[in-house]
Amino acid sequence: MRAVIVEAPGDVDVLTLGEADTPTPGPGEVLVRTVASGVNRADILQRQGHYPPPPGVTDIIGLEASGVVERVGEGVERWKEGDEVVALLSGGGYAEFFVAPEGQLIPPPPGVDLVSAAGVLEVAATVLSNLRVGNLAHGEVFLVHGGAGGIGTFATQYAKALGAVVAATAGSEDKLRHCREHGADFAFDYHGDWVSALKEATGGADVILDIIGAKYLEANVKALKKRGRMVVIGLQGGVKGTLNLGLLLSKQATISATSLRFRPAAEKAEICAAVEAQVWPMLGDGRIRLSPETRIAFDDVRAAHELLSGGSNVGKIVLVH
Amino acid sequence: MRAVIVEAPGDVDVLTLGEADTPTPGPGEVLVRTVASGVNRADILQRQGHYPPPPGVTDIIGLEASGVVERVGEGVERWKEGDEVVALLSGGGYAEFFVAPEGQLIPPPPGVDLVSAAGVLEVAATVLSNLRVGNLAHGEVFLVHGGAGGIGTFATQYAKALGAVVAATAGSEDKLRHCREHGADFAFDYHGDWVSALKEATGGADVILDIIGAKYLEANVKALKKRGRMVVIGLQGGVKGTLNLGLLLSKQATISATSLRFRPAAEKAEICAAVEAQVWPMLGDGRIRLSPETRIAFDDVRAAHELLSGGSNVGKIVLVH
Repeated sequence: MRAVIVEAPGDVDVLTLGEADTPTPGPGEVLVRTVASGVNRADILQRQGHYPPPPGVTDIIGLEASGVVERVGEGVERWKEGDEVVALLSGGGYAEFFVAPEGQLIPPPPGVDLVSAAGVLEVAATVLSNLRVGNLAHGEVFLVHGGAGGIGTFATQYAKALGAVVAATAGSEDKLRHCREHGADFAFDYHGDWVSALKEATGGADVILDIIGAKYLEANVKALKKRGRMVVIGLQGGVKGTLNLGLLLSKQATISATSLRFRPAAEKAEICAAVEAQVWPMLGDGRIRLSPETRIAFDDVRAAHELLSGGSNVGKIVLVH
Repeated sequence: MRAVIVEAPGDVDVLTLGEADTPTPGPGEVLVRTVASGVNRADILQRQGHYPPPPGVTDIIGLEASGVVERVGEGVERWKEGDEVVALLSGGGYAEFFVAPEGQLIPPPPGVDLVSAAGVLEVAATVLSNLRVGNLAHGEVFLVHGGAGGIGTFATQYAKALGAVVAATAGSEDKLRHCREHGADFAFDYHGDWVSALKEATGGADVILDIIGAKYLEANVKALKKRGRMVVIGLQGGVKGTLNLGLLLSKQATISATSLRFRPAAEKAEICAAVEAQVWPMLGDGRIRLSPETRIAFDDVRAAHELLSGGSNVGKIVLVH
């Protein structure tokens, strides 16, 4: 099959189209012919050698994809040849075919075509699973950084649908408007003193979803309310930061760091089921609206990575096969 | 009533015996004539001005005490004049009388006299409530620092009773022996590379109960297993430390900082009930053994603080009225 091959970590040039063995579905697994592959920031990190796949996983990049079931392995009950699916993957999405455990496949969201659907599950599963870690409750204050990004836009709408008061940070007037248009009650420019602004407006955050890491660690702890929970899922602002444990203790607060990719398959399946049950209806009735995705031909994978790295793109990028 | 008065924060000299108004029990509260007052490290911090009482709480020091019920407020159901009780307090224990909400009083442990009992509830409630935060499960690896101290000795025995594998750190051969004698499966000298020793012996800690704070932050994160939970309840080694969020993320780990004192009354009552139901039987049948306490006359409160600050004392210190 055709697949994106990376011989050695590096810049976009290391992404080359080549041939790989078509994978064979084991017991409980499903072979899917790819329609489109979602492109995620983690893919760039993996290409650069900073985010190796978990043990036993293909080294072909790609954390999500959509497609049509080609063949099912032993014991697979839900799926049959010809079914349309989206998949949450530990790797392997940048290829003509991929295999996934039965539970990591769900139907595309209602009314969304398979190409658009390729870029939805990873962000939905990330947001749903991590707001569970933060245990966000109705009426609580939720803060998300990068409010105009893929995770931020989704998290804002999802948290609103859960009944939270939502605050988002972003770096330009356009992006702040994007946050408000997607339901953020408050949008703060991160170039300013967003901690004070947040506290003044809301008293502080009960739950923070953070993709920045070290750079925001001290500010995030300051921004937390008593009993606040901070969930770190990205490290775009560095790895090692200063933690004021005295402040954390006086707030009785918690910092969790999690990622979807390294969770065991059973948990991923449970998360996919929750996305299908809880998030797909929100997409169906418009409580969550997706920004139009940017479609790029599979052969132009380098252009897709360049576009995502550039940071100017709004909405998801998908590779069309 | 007689009480320990602190006019201004400072050294032991600021502790003076004086007179204060005998408190009046409000609805749901109980007035208790003190038999003995437990002395805790937090009392020293409060005397020094580093640990002010929560809003609305007396500024008389003292987080736990034992005594005999003198009078009950409106609506109190469980207690009547003459009942023997131990109390978990937000303050006020260093006095001839104290008041406490009904739910923060429980009977002394079976077979323990009221003087010894004055020093048990604070440590029991601290350990029980914080191992709940860490969600310690049967068969998991539990690490406690200061294994020969009051919290360490109690936590070791309690975690063993819950079925955990217990590792403790301490700083001398005597103290390491104390840890083993109280059930620690592994005891490590903190002057050496205890992280490597722990990992070699157990694979790492599922739950860490930490009283050190900043100084051990990096080492604790290294010592955690995948999905490990670290619960910081003390800052004897400083407030601001370096947190490696990348390592925390790769382990999907969590850091919580909590203290018993600042929890709402309803939670304290629930914790006291759990101590009575779960911990008192362990004291009754010997699964948890208390080190003999050091008894000091109430009038010699300065000597008690000096002894605790000196660090040579083993077991609890109680002030006898």
